[in-house]
Formats: sequence, C-alpha cells, structure tokens
Amino acid sequence: MSSRTVIRHGLVITASDEIHADVLVEDGRIAALATPHAQSWTADRVIDATGKYVIPGGVDVHTHMELPFGGTHASDTFETGTRAAAWGGTTTIVDFAVQSVGHTLREGLDAWHAKAEGNCAIDYAFHMIVSDVNDETLKEMDLLIEEGVTSFKQFMAYPGVFYSDDGQILRAMQRSAENGGLIMMHAENGIAIDVLVQQALARGETDPRHHGEVRKALLEAEATHRAIRLAQVAGAPLYVVHVSATEAVAELARARDEGLNVFGETCPQYLFLSADNLAEPDFEGAKYVCSTPLRPREHQASLWRALRTNDLQVVSTDHCPFCFTGQKELGRGDFSKIPNGLPGVENRMDLLHQAVVDGRIPRRRWIEIACATPARMFGLYPKKGTIAPGADADIVIYDPHAEQVMSAETHHMNVDYSAYEGKRVTGRVETVLSRGEPVIVQREYTGRAGHGVFTPRSTCQYLN
Amino acid sequence: MSSRTVIRHGLVITASDEIHADVLVEDGRIAALATPHAQSWTADRVIDATGKYVIPGGVDVHTHMELPFGGTHASDTFETGTRAAAWGGTTTIVDFAVQSVGHTLREGLDAWHAKAEGNCAIDYAFHMIVSDVNDETLKEMDLLIEEGVTSFKQFMAYPGVFYSDDGQILRAMQRSAENGGLIMMHAENGIAIDVLVQQALARGETDPRHHGEVRKALLEAEATHRAIRLAQVAGAPLYVVHVSATEAVAELARARDEGLNVFGETCPQYLFLSADNLAEPDFEGAKYVCSTPLRPREHQASLWRALRTNDLQVVSTDHCPFCFTGQKELGRGDFSKIPNGLPGVENRMDLLHQAVVDGRIPRRRWIEIACATPARMFGLYPKKGTIAPGADADIVIYDPHAEQVMSAETHHMNVDYSAYEGKRVTGRVETVLSRGEPVIVQREYTGRAGHGVFTPRSTCQYLN
Amino acid sequence: MSSRTVIRHGLVITASDEIHADVLVEDGRIAALATPHAQSWTADRVIDATGKYVIPGGVDVHTHMELPFGGTHASDTFETGTRAAAWGGTTTIVDFAVQSVGHTLREGLDAWHAKAEGNCAIDYAFHMIVSDVNDETLKEMDLLIEEGVTSFKQFMAYPGVFYSDDGQILRAMQRSAENGGLIMMHAENGIAIDVLVQQALARGETDPRHHGEVRKALLEAEATHRAIRLAQVAGAPLYVVHVSATEAVAELARARDEGLNVFGETCPQYLFLSADNLAEPDFEGAKYVCSTPLRPREHQASLWRALRTNDLQVVSTDHCPFCFTGQKELGRGDFSKIPNGLPGVENRMDLLHQAVVDGRIPRRRWIEIACATPARMFGLYPKKGTIAPGADADIVIYDPHAEQVMSAETHHMNVDYSAYEGKRVTGRVETVLSRGEPVIVQREYTGRAGHGVFTPRSTCQYLN
Amino acid sequence: MSSRTVIRHGLVITASDEIHADVLVEDGRIAALATPHAQSWTADRVIDATGKYVIPGGVDVHTHMELPFGGTHASDTFETGTRAAAWGGTTTIVDFAVQSVGHTLREGLDAWHAKAEGNCAIDYAFHMIVSDVNDETLKEMDLLIEEGVTSFKQFMAYPGVFYSDDGQILRAMQRSAENGGLIMMHAENGIAIDVLVQQALARGETDPRHHGEVRKALLEAEATHRAIRLAQVAGAPLYVVHVSATEAVAELARARDEGLNVFGETCPQYLFLSADNLAEPDFEGAKYVCSTPLRPREHQASLWRALRTNDLQVVSTDHCPFCFTGQKELGRGDFSKIPNGLPGVENRMDLLHQAVVDGRIPRRRWIEIACATPARMFGLYPKKGTIAPGADADIVIYDPHAEQVMSAETHHMNVDYSAYEGKRVTGRVETVLSRGEPVIVQREYTGRAGHGVFTPRSTCQYLN
Repeated sequence: MSSRTVIRHGLVITASDEIHADVLVEDGRIAALATPHAQSWTADRVIDATGKYVIPGGVDVHTHMELPFGGTHASDTFETGTRAAAWGGTTTIVDFAVQSVGHTLREGLDAWHAKAEGNCAIDYAFHMIVSDVNDETLKEMDLLIEEGVTSFKQFMAYPGVFYSDDGQILRAMQRSAENGGLIMMHAENGIAIDVLVQQALARGETDPRHHGEVRKALLEAEATHRAIRLAQVAGAPLYVVHVSATEAVAELARARDEGLNVFGETCPQYLFLSADNLAEPDFEGAKYVCSTPLRPREHQASLWRALRTNDLQVVSTDHCPFCFTGQKELGRGDFSKIPNGLPGVENRMDLLHQAVVDGRIPRRRWIEIACATPARMFGLYPKKGTIAPGADADIVIYDPHAEQVMSAETHHMNVDYSAYEGKRVTGRVETVLSRGEPVIVQREYTGRAGHGVFTPRSTCQYLN
Repeated sequence: MSSRTVIRHGLVITASDEIHADVLVEDGRIAALATPHAQSWTADRVIDATGKYVIPGGVDVHTHMELPFGGTHASDTFETGTRAAAWGGTTTIVDFAVQSVGHTLREGLDAWHAKAEGNCAIDYAFHMIVSDVNDETLKEMDLLIEEGVTSFKQFMAYPGVFYSDDGQILRAMQRSAENGGLIMMHAENGIAIDVLVQQALARGETDPRHHGEVRKALLEAEATHRAIRLAQVAGAPLYVVHVSATEAVAELARARDEGLNVFGETCPQYLFLSADNLAEPDFEGAKYVCSTPLRPREHQASLWRALRTNDLQVVSTDHCPFCFTGQKELGRGDFSKIPNGLPGVENRMDLLHQAVVDGRIPRRRWIEIACATPARMFGLYPKKGTIAPGADADIVIYDPHAEQVMSAETHHMNVDYSAYEGKRVTGRVETVLSRGEPVIVQREYTGRAGHGVFTPRSTCQYLN
Repeated sequence: MSSRTVIRHGLVITASDEIHADVLVEDGRIAALATPHAQSWTADRVIDATGKYVIPGGVDVHTHMELPFGGTHASDTFETGTRAAAWGGTTTIVDFAVQSVGHTLREGLDAWHAKAEGNCAIDYAFHMIVSDVNDETLKEMDLLIEEGVTSFKQFMAYPGVFYSDDGQILRAMQRSAENGGLIMMHAENGIAIDVLVQQALARGETDPRHHGEVRKALLEAEATHRAIRLAQVAGAPLYVVHVSATEAVAELARARDEGLNVFGETCPQYLFLSADNLAEPDFEGAKYVCSTPLRPREHQASLWRALRTNDLQVVSTDHCPFCFTGQKELGRGDFSKIPNGLPGVENRMDLLHQAVVDGRIPRRRWIEIACATPARMFGLYPKKGTIAPGADADIVIYDPHAEQVMSAETHHMNVDYSAYEGKRVTGRVETVLSRGEPVIVQREYTGRAGHGVFTPRSTCQYLN
Repeated sequence: MSSRTVIRHGLVITASDEIHADVLVEDGRIAALATPHAQSWTADRVIDATGKYVIPGGVDVHTHMELPFGGTHASDTFETGTRAAAWGGTTTIVDFAVQSVGHTLREGLDAWHAKAEGNCAIDYAFHMIVSDVNDETLKEMDLLIEEGVTSFKQFMAYPGVFYSDDGQILRAMQRSAENGGLIMMHAENGIAIDVLVQQALARGETDPRHHGEVRKALLEAEATHRAIRLAQVAGAPLYVVHVSATEAVAELARARDEGLNVFGETCPQYLFLSADNLAEPDFEGAKYVCSTPLRPREHQASLWRALRTNDLQVVSTDHCPFCFTGQKELGRGDFSKIPNGLPGVENRMDLLHQAVVDGRIPRRRWIEIACATPARMFGLYPKKGTIAPGADADIVIYDPHAEQVMSAETHHMNVDYSAYEGKRVTGRVETVLSRGEPVIVQREYTGRAGHGVFTPRSTCQYLN
C-alpha cells in the first residue's frame, strides 16, 4: 500500500532553485513537484508549509559517534547522536569507521556496522579511517568501494595512533586514483606539532589555550600543501577535513586555481568560535579543544570568504562530543590529554541559516554547502541533498522566523555542555521527514531507533 | 482555455540535477515535474523524450543582431537571428542596445526595441551599451533598470566610437554600485592597441592575422586588471565579456580569490578556434576576425580549466555575423577595416555538448554555463535557465547521440560562411518549446516572428 | 699641480664591503684604498676618520629644484637646494627638466641647464619629463641620451598638465627599448582620481586629509600594473617613482618574480610619515601633501620589507619644497590646490641611517639604496655611488654616534617647516668632499655655488 | 720578512665594482687597490694582468671530497679535489663533515679534519651533516659554531641514512634560531620518492633515466615548501641546496616575497645539463645521476631567471665524483644503486663565465653568485669572496678571451669522465693566488698539499 504525503505552500529551496511549489511524497521518495495551482493531489498526510522553507534534509559528512579516543569514548551513541541530528534538521550522517593498526579494514567496518545497525533515527553511511596502509589494506579499499564505503581518511597528525607517513599516503592516493575512492585528509604536521606540544608542557604551559598555540596555522597550511602535492603526484582527488586557518585556505585556493580536484570542508566551530574560547578560565577552554584547533578570530573572515568563493565546498560538524565532567577533565594539568572534539551535529543547519540571516551567504548557498555538495562529494546524490522527483523524501520544514537560544538545557545531544551556550539565532527546524517518515513533527520527536539504514555510496560526483 | 503539454520519459538535466522525470507544461509555464510512475497526467500534447535529454532552453547573453559596425550591419536581423538561435536550442537572447555618443540611452533603447519588436522567434532582453557617460546618462541608468534593462556595457577599446575613459568607467560603476546594475566590460587597452595597429599597417602588415598579433594578450589582461580595480574602488560587481587570454583569466582568478564579485564569460570561438584560423590564406582569415581576437591554441586549455574551476562562469556567443562577400571584404588590404564579429548563436549549445562528449566538462556544467548562470547573472532566473515548477516552459529536447556536421550549407544564420565549417559533432536539438509553444518540432521550424517578447530583467542574482 | 687628501682610520662602507682602510684622493678622484699599515702616503690634507664611517656621497635621483607647480615654484633654488643636499651628505642630485606641452624637449632641457649652471654646490644631472609624446619628441629622446640625459619621466596622473595616455607611454617605452633610455613612471590613475577629487570637493571634503583618501592605494597599484604591462609589451625596462602603497609593491614583486626589468623607488616620507600627518589639524596636514600621498601607517611595513627583499631598489626624496606660509596655503578650502611636495633632500641619509640603527636594514644596504643603486640605475656608476679607485672623490665622513634633532630651525633647505620637526635621530654628517673638494668640513659649509657641474649619464647599468 | 706582489693593469671585478686598478698583496692579504697612475709600488713579484680580469677566487660551498656513499667513496680526495678546484679558479671550498647515526657531531668533524688536514691546496671549511638530532647533538651545534663550523645540513631524503623527520628538523632549526647557525636542506620528499623508486624497479624500470622520473619536481617543491614553513615556525633562516626544479624555485620566490630569510643555491649541472643526459644510452646516463636529479630542459630557464632575480643566490657544485668504471657501474640493472654525484669543482667558474659570454648574467653577478654571496652566506666575508684591502689575497687572473674544450683528458679531477665532455667555452683561469701564494701560474701548478688551511667561519652574514 502506498503512502502519500503532500507538503503545500512552502518555498522549496535547493542548491540551485527557490520555487513556490508543492511537494508530493510517495513511498518514501519525492514523486513530484508542482506549482500550487497546477495539481490536485490527494494524500494521506498534508503538511502546511505556508511561510516556511521546504529544504533537503542536512547531510553531515563528518561525525564520530561513540569514537574511542584518548581512553574514553565520544559521548553520543549512534542512537542519541542521530536523534539529535534529526532535531537539528540533518537526515544523513557519514560517520568514520576506524581501522586499528594491525587490523583489517573489514574488522573496523564490521565493528562500526554493529554499533550503528538498528540504532539510528536517520540514514547513515561510513567513511573508513585507514591507519595502516599495506598491500592488504590497499586491496580492501577496492572491496569497500564495492560495498558503498567510497572514502578513506588518513591522518598527517597523531603519530603512533592514526598517523600515516607520506609514503603510505601516496600509496593510498595512488590506489584511490584507480578505484575512484576519495582520500580525506586530516592535514596537520603532527610530527612537528608533537615537538611543540612536548616543549610547551616542559615549560609548564598546560592550559587548554596552549593546545591552540602549539598546533600552528602554518603547520596546518604546510600539511595541506603537502597533501595537495602528493595527490597531484598520484593523480588523485583530495578532500581536506576541518580547514581552520587562513593559510590553509590559501593553499586550497592556489590548488584550485591550478585546476586540481582539491576540496575542503570547514565546520561551524571555526566559523563562529575562536581561540578566545580556548582561553576561557577555569579550564572551561577544554570544551573547545579539537584538532585542528580554534584559531584567532581573524581567521573566520577567510573561511567565510572561501565558502563564498567555493574554495571551501562543505560545512560539516566533526561532531565528536565529550562531557566536560569526567571526560574533558582528563586533561586538567595537561592539555594534550584533553579528548579532542566538540558537539555540533544538532547545531549546524541553524548556525548556517544564521549566516544567511547575517548576509554572509545566500540562501541557496546554505543548502549547497550543507546538503547538496556533501551529498555529491560523497556519492549520495541525488538520493540525498536535493528535492527533486526520485530523491529520497528527506525533507525539512524550516521556520526562518522562529528564534531560539542554543543551550545544553534544551539540546538533544548526549553531552553536558553546548559549545554555543546562550547563542541566539533566528530560524528553527519544525518538521523533519526521513524517507517520507515523520521523525520530527512540529518539534515533537516521532522517530525511532532503527528507522535509519546504512546507505551505500557511489564514488565522488563532484570532480571537475 | 488552458493548454497542457507533457514531456515523457526524458532525462531532465538542470545545473544541479539529473533526474528521470516527466514534465508538465501548462499555460506556457512548467507546472510540475514527476517521476514517471507518480502521475497520470492528461495533456493536449505529449512529447516522447525517451533516450533524450530534457534541458532548459539556452540563454545567450551576448548577441549583436543588426549591429551597425564599421560602415555596415551585422547580417542577422532579429528575425533571422532568433530563428537560428531556436534551431540551435537557444530560447532567450540578451542583445545590446547602443547609445551613440551625443544621444541618450533612451534613444538607443527605443531604436533597439523597434528593431526587435514583432520580429523575434524567441524571447529577448537588452543590455545597454553606454558610449557617453555624463550626468544625464547616469540618471537614465536608474530608469532603465526599472524597465528591466539592468546591465550596461562599456568599452576600454575602440577610442572615438564606444570607448569610455577610466573616469567614465568609474562613474558608471559607482552608479551601478547604488542602483544594482551590472557593468559589462570589453577589456582591451584600445589606446595602446591602436598605436600597435597603426605601426603594423605602416609596416605593411595588413593581413587578418596581424589583427590577432597587435591585439596582445597582455593588453587584454591589463584592461581586465584595470576594470577589476576600478570596480573594487567603486564597490561594484563586474562582468568581463569575451575573455580569450590565459593572462586575463589569471587576473579574474586572482580577483575571485580575493572574494570580489568579478565574473567572466568566454565564447565558443575562443574554445574551439585559434590564431591558426586567422592565418588562413586568401583572406579567409577575415572570417575569424573579432575582438578580443582568437589566440594561439595554447590559450584554450586555460579557458577550459577556468570553466571547470568557475573562474569563468558563462559561455555566450558574441554573435555578430558579417558575410565574407561584401562585408568582411571591406578589410582587404587593411585588417583594421574588417568588420569585427563571428556568427555563432546557432552553434553554442552543440559545441558545448561536444565538450561534454569530449570529457571537458560534466553534463550539468554544460547547462550551468549555457543556461542557468547566464540567466542568474542577468536577472532572468528562475523564469529562464532551469526546469522547475513556475519557470517558463523554454525547453529543449536534445538528442545526445545524433551526429551532425556544421556547415553554412545547412545552418540557419543569415551569413555566407560557418566558422566551424565541416566540424562534426555529436548531439543535436530535436524539439524546442518557447513558453510552451513549439518552435522547432522534430527539426521542423514551427515558430513565428513575433512570438518572442521583450523580457524585463531583475538585477544580478549571482553576487556573493 | 696635484692635490692629495688622505682619509685615515675610518670604516669604509660600500654597497658590498665594510673595510678598515685608508683612502687616498688625488685630483678629485679616489686614487687608492689601503689597509692602514700598508702604506705611507703623503698628502696635502689628512682627515682623521677614527670612529667614523667613510661612505660614498649620497645620490638623490629625484629632486625638483625651482619646479613650477600649481602657480608657484618649489622654494629651493639649485643653489639653496644643493647646498642643503651637501649638508645632508648627498653629493649628486638628478633633477627633472620639464618639457611643457607644445614645446620641445630641447627647450625644456636648456631652461633647466640655465637654472642650474653655476649655482650648484654639488654635481647634478637631469632626467627629462616628457609631457608631449610625438614623432619629434621621440627623436629628441635619442639626442638627449647622447648628451647624458638618459631617463624620461611620464605621468599617468595630472591630466592636462603632465599626463600621457597609454598610447604615448607605449610609444616612449618602445623608443627607450631601442635607444637604451629608462622610462620613469608616476603611477597613479589620474583620470579616475580626478573624478574622486571632484566628488570629494562637491561633498565639501576640502581638508588636506582628503587628498590622501581620494588618491587611493588601489589606483596607485592599478597604474603600476598597467605601466608594467605596457613596458612588457614594449620590451623596455621601467622605473616606478615614489612607490607608497602595499598593493603597488605587490605588483612590482610579481613583475620581478616574472623576471622583468621593473624597478621601484620609495621616499623617506612614505617610510617615516603616514596619513596621520595629513590629518593634522589647523591645515597643518598641508605640509605633508604630495603625490603619491602618504598612506595609512600599516603600509610602512610593506615598504621596509620590499627594501630588504630588493623589490624596491632605491630611496630618493622627491624633494619638492613649498613653504607653508604663502604656498601650501594656496589650498586652504580646496586640497586640490595645495602645491604637491615635501622638503627632504637634506634628511634622507640621516633617516636611512636611523633605519640601520633601528635594525630595519643592514649597514651596507643603506649605502646600496642611497648611493650605489641610484648611481647604477641611472648610469653614474662607478663615477658616483661607491668608494673605489677611479671613482669621483665624493665622500662623506659620517659620525654614527652623534645625535641630532631635525628641525626647520636648523636645517638648510629654503622652506619654513620640516616634515620631521622634532624627530631625534642618531648619526650625522661631519665632513663632505665633492670631487675631492671639501664642501662641509666638521659641520662648516666650505663649498661654493658653481663647484657642482652637470654630469652626463650613461644608460641604465642595473638591468638583469 | 714581508713578501709583496703587485698585479698590474687588470680589470678588477667584484660583486659590486668593475675598476681598472692595480692590486698590492702583502703578507698574504690584499694591502691596497690603486689606480694605475696613483702609485709606484715596489714588489717582489709583479703580475701583468693586461687584458685580463682580476677576480676573487671562487668559493665553492658545496663539495663532498672522499664522501662514503652507497658502499664506495667519492673519487676525489681532499688533495686531488682541492688541486682541481684551484685549476678551476676556486680558492675556498666548504665541504661536508658527516655525523653518522649513533655517533656525535664531534666524531664526524674530527674524522673530516683528519682527512683534510695537510692535504689541501687551497683553504677549506666545513659544514656539518646532522643525521641524528637529539639533546646532545643540539648542544654540540653550539660548540661547533664556536669552532667556526656554523652551518648544518639536514636531509628530507635518504630515509635510514641521512634522513631527519620534521620534528628533528624543527628542533635543529629552533636551535639555529638561537645560536646563529644556518640550516642547509636537501629538500626532496624521500619517503614518497622511495615508494616511487620501489614501484619503478618492480615494473622493471631500472635505467638511469628512471632516477630522474621518480624523483619528481613536485616532490622537490613540496619538501622545499615544507622546509620553509618549518623554518618560519622556528624563526630561523634556511638555505636550500641544489635547487633544480621550476616548482621549487617558485616556492623560494614566494617565501622571499613574504620577506623570509630563505635562500637557495643551484649547481652548474642543473643549468647546463638536463634529463636528456640521464637518458643517454649504454648506461652512460649513470654519469649524470645525482639528487636532486637533472630535470627536463625547460627547467633551466627558471633557474637562470632566478639567478637574475636573486631568488637563487649561490651557484655551488655539489662536487661528488664517482668514476664511471667501477663506481657508477654498481647501479647497472638498478638505478637506485648508482652512487649519486657528479664531478664539477673544476668547471664552475668557467661555466658561469660562459653564461656571462652568453648574456645570461652580468659580469659582476658572476662574481656575486660564485664568490661574494657564498662567502657572505657562510660567514667568510670579507676574508674571502672579494678584492678589498684586508681581504685574503685569494685572487684569480682570468683570461676572458681564451677558449677551451672541457674534457676528462685534460681536467684535473680524479674521475674518469667529464660531465661536460667536449663542451667549448670562452674564458680560462690563468693564474691563481691563495693567500698571496701562487698556486697556478700561467697554467702551471705551483701549489702544494698542505698550503690550504681550515678556515673557521662566522655565522651567516646575508640575513635581511
């Protein structure tokens, strides 16, 4: 039996169009768009979107639910994290499965499937963190791509944990040049940074703000440049995660001027927060410890500009929450022991809408960087990321006029603080459909763990 | 009485989506898109697009029908030129009304309205060439914008004819910063070039190829840079027409890296032809004389790259045909007397599709540079340039597999040669609707002069 | 009869060497350098330079003695100006002869010879300002080069007075590419600036500070870029005068990275003063009105850096003094009527030595930018600008430890204010020889008008 | 008893001056320069330099005498190598002492002192190769600087042999920022290159030309950029050795535009030879195997341009000869086993003079890049690198008109081939003095092993 939903009288916004149209949903997919007077659809459910935006559900391509890190785990499970995502208007996450050194990709992926399966409120997919490049791993990459895990993250930081050396990176890139995979890079010169970390600690500089000072912008830019040139040698595309520094943006812009398939994401924390937060007293700065670190405020303008010029293409969250109490506190007296990460999966769509309100980006660009391009970059398009006949009915009814104040009191992420505590923004998610099913209805949660399914991805659809 | 057309079973391609959907046209506008099985539309007319592309009609924002130039006129009238455009899959042109020095903008615009009205097979709009900036002209700019003529072209070349000095340019840009107009620039240092022209002629270098040699790439780049900086001083956006040189592209890329609202178009002749054509013997080179001139072949790669990186945003034609016999021949013995211009309005969509076939640009990018961005740049979106509910039903059924050979024998432009004579391409227009009316049906012309109407434009919709 | 002078025990500093050596002067030229113990010279005159620097006399390649400008004349004659130069350790000036529109170069040069001859305390040479490029002027350039006037200044500013259009500039550059002349450029887009000037005045913005605001850094950079590209087209070298803006320096640096023979000078006022001075109350800002204008303070760092990286090669003064009373006052109520220019010929060597004291430039670089490179750039080397056997004995004994306070009370320039009033610097000229003749002896003036002679110059010796 | 030599009637050329002067040498040092008619010196020895150049002896700051490499030794001993250097007009070498991993700097330096002492025909100094950065090594750096070994080379290539990781590099740079040392960098990404080497060998690509293909220009540029940013983080100057690629030069130019104290040398093999030589048949390409490798011919123009723009400051030889027979042959069937290095210490001055003859560089620039700047860069100035009172009398009488043909038949280096076999050049060394002692007299060797002494160096004298 077919279920039909009609969304009437809203303003449908996609990456390319803004149209007054009604949307017909049938069997979990978008069946039709029509001008209000062109059709007379019958439906089981009618949603009145008068005065609201009808937008594609957000696609957050950088989350770390339940990630083991520094002797603890990210505090959101796939259940709590995906529910919070839905509250924030995100209907797809791409999380990172982890290969541990000495283990296969398969083992890591299986483990992550086990964590996620049956627990998610919205659809999910996986990237694979490759910690140990060798002949076997390279072959496994091919297999994972066939299974819809088409992107592979490597780290130029964290020696001894996730770190790959330039030879390992080059080999993985060469393989991705052949099999269509996309290498995602954590671009910081971790070897040099670790020297600076030890020197800082030896000088007694142990507070959270020193985390920001030792992880220098120049060392992010250096690694970004290095990754670009390795990708150029390999003839492979490259996606740089969590870009935070003016100097790193400049390297991306240079590569793009040269016509290279080099891409970058940034995250809301780099756009709205700064090193000032890391310097908050009473160890409160620990709440903002993540890598790449928050930068001095003047870097923000470069990131916004790059989002306008398309030198950065995606805003994801790098959602990786740790409670202040009991988790962030592990690093009292030694900033290097503070678990790295911030909560944010629930806040992204609203913060970027605020950027629209503030005139930083046009309305369509909001959808492009938060929905359409992430989907396209990681092979989910047009199933996800747009509103068009045939697409999954992952739809958000967004009230552009409602006001809200962000707070740990009211958010749904499983973490005891908000990185944006007290921030007032205009715009709020009202209703969310995931494949046609209501997950949030008029700000009531109506979803369920297990509705969300693993979504295999094709290879990158964003290449020049 | 309402007329309804349904286009079934095609692949609908827009700047952002590729979807298998049926399209319902009602009263000249697109009423709905639906997945093939989602609807059971009745219609007066059904077009079967199985195996075909369903694309927005092309938007050519740079044509010169009937333009007086060098003692003669461009050989296409609005009637012949718009008919040829339709044959080539273009359903909107933006032509240039001309202010003559000493006359008002109003006089020029009225004259061009008179030429076009009742004669066009497809919709049209106007830019205004401003040859004489003064207090009155500046006030008239405001009025024209209210009438839907929202873009103004100035020339850094052609002293004594269209030329504006830097002060006049700055004043027009300042005005456009206030009234929302967009300055379009012919960027060549005409003062310097004219010195080189006279020197070449004095040396007896009179052949068409010398036209290309004296109009140096560096002098295009210089003027491009100058226009950018003047626009920056004025706080105004800028659109550079017919970009042809690697060095000019570099200036645009630099400006865009800086976050400036600076845009550029190129034309098929710069992408597919070269200075080699200018050197064809027996004065045949004259067929390829236009300004900016065709460049040595190695410039093509820069233009293609810039189209991929979005450092160039639009491909228009600068369609300005002069017959070889009787018109181009005016310049025998003196290349400076050859009327400047090429025919192309009929060839653009096919040539760019060939670039898709050749792997130079993705399919959606074809639609973006030829339909969507031109419409958005010049305030015609979403009425023109996309396929979405509410948009004008300017639709092309395009056969991506048909082969054709370009030739003056078979083209519909009123000119005695083709710039692409003998060129074999894959892809061909099959059927064209203009506001729902069939203009071309299965390669039969069914349109009529006067169907096309003047289309007022809003201001630029492409600003950062 | 031969006269011999020996300078003993000083530290001889040239652009390349710092050596403890004695210097033998014979018949107006340097005859020998020797280590203190290597020789036993007899001499008519022995100067003890113990603890002092022995440096080449300064070469100031940008002065305007007695220049007619804006209905008045620069207040220093060749007599007063060259005497002040000597007091400041400068032993050669290159002043600008002026061609008036409608007159020949010859007439202009003859007039300047007449002003200078018999009046100068130190040697002098001429550049030629070319205000009117035509076939005759171009031929005259060749003749002037034979007479030792080998550099030609053009203006992209001051329309209607000195202004040359891009065609005239290109022609002069082409000629210089053939005859070895060096084009010097006042690089400001005067056409655009004059629009801004009129607009500012119309808004009632008449104070001196508006002079700085309308002559925008971007319009200096634009003109600099344009001059570079015209020179590149002509295949000629280029020397840009009085560079003041960060953005202009960037254009020079880019050109130099490309390997072009493009050079730039700046002046002490841009290094030590800023737009803050232009904003001094009670019309005092008028004292600092010159073109290019003083810039906001942050531009200084770019200029110093460029002096270190050799993206700027020369520091001259653009000495062009007008008294505050009676001259600068002509512009009360209309900044555009303030005579453009500052006094400085006496201050340059000291200010640059202060930069050595402050650690901004190394000691040898001081001599390079103030003596050696100016001489080489304009064909005076090694006659001027170094201390080496065979060179003219233009020598300054400089006390690096003496302190002084700059002031109109004590300076020797014929102008009623000092641009550096009250500035305390370390270092002072003690004794000056011009072709072996003492002009200043232990801070007593012993020179005479007419000692200085016209010095023909060869063509540029600084080309790559 | 004092010995006096006078060199008469030559053209003395230094980095800054070209003067007709006589030179008086006394007790091994230059005592005086004088114009020919200014003096009447008596002398024990008179050298007539009529028609000849009198230039400072060359300073070659990059040699590897007797270097152990790949299971063999460089074929020139300090005795044969320094004798050949003298024949070629070089009077100072700075060779590289080597720290082996697990050993101290002291041990390495002592070993190299032992090899050189008593064996050299000309003066010599040492850099120190640091293979093993640790707390002890860093302390030893301070001590070596006090002993006149003020520069330290690190390798980003050769993992397992000389390789330092980025943390070790950063630490050494930090130390040099404090103690005034200068880090010299072999800038190639050896980790990535070794992957490419293994892949090439696995594909059966074993010929010498593959050596050039796997050591990619992009990987030289990447490492150059990385070294620059690490130096910037450390606040230290940087000297990049044997720059060979256009892309690496671009990184240096960018750093210099930013005002960083970043320097680069190239070598004659990169200026005069190319990848074509590596492809010579019958394993002859092995003669040209060195790292960085010879590049395709088009890179040469970038290097010459950078020498003109001072983006490269020094030309050294990286003299490291291995006989074709018995040494180069170790790599037959496996290019990675070919000992890396070329002979050249005897050829440098002549090849660069040929560049003067060819119009590539001015005459003074020849002396600057081959004598003066190397001396200044490495703390030997003005003792070495110039002709001025007080300097060591290391003087070459150079015949600018003599012709010669380079050949292993006639050269004096202990190696069985010449990299420039058959090359005809104009210019030849005639007579060489080392500290006043004749080493070559009219092309007769009159020197002796042991004349040359270790020359302690001060820290870098070339900083901005």
